[in-house]
Amino acid sequence: MKVSIYVSPKKGVLDPAGQAALGALKSLGFGEVADVRIGKYIILRLEDIDAGKAEDRVQEMCERLLANPIIEDYRIEMGD
Amino acid sequence: MKVSIYVSPKKGVLDPAGQAALGALKSLGFGEVADVRIGKYIILRLEDIDAGKAEDRVQEMCERLLANPIIEDYRIEMGD
Repeated sequence: MKVSIYVSPKKGVLDPAGQAALGALKSLGFGEVADVRIGKYIILRLEDIDAGKAEDRVQEMCERLLANPIIEDYRIEMGD
Repeated sequence: MKVSIYVSPKKGVLDPAGQAALGALKSLGFGEVADVRIGKYIILRLEDIDAGKAEDRVQEMCERLLANPIIEDYRIEMGD
C-alpha cells in the first residue's frame, strides 16, 4: 500500500528555505512569485498491514518522527 | 494563485534521507514500512499573472531552480 504524506511549515513559522527560494526566483526574473513555502513530500510503502489500521499507524509515524507537530502541519493520503 | 509542486527522487536514485527515516521507523517498531522516499512539497503564491501562462512559468521555475530534473521528478498542481 502506498501512502503520501505532505508536511508543510505552519502559518507564521519562519521558513528559511522558502525565503531563500523566493529570493532566488525573483533574481532569476520570476517577479510574479509572491511567496514560497517548502515542506516535505514523503512516500511510504507499507506491507502486511490491515487497511483499517494503516491510517492510524501512519498518523503515529507522523507525530513521532516524520513531522514536527509544533511547527509543521501534515496531511496523509492513503493509496495511490 | 496557489500552486503546489511535488518533487520526488527518481526511481533508482539513492535517497539517504528516506533510508534514514526507514531505519528510524523500523527501530520505533513500525515494521510494516517497506520503503520511504522523501522529496519536497513546495507551495507557491503567484500574483499578477495570466492564468494561461502560469503553468509554463512554474515549469520553468522547476527546471531552473526548484527541482533537479536529472535526479528528481516533479508534478505541478495549479490552484487550491
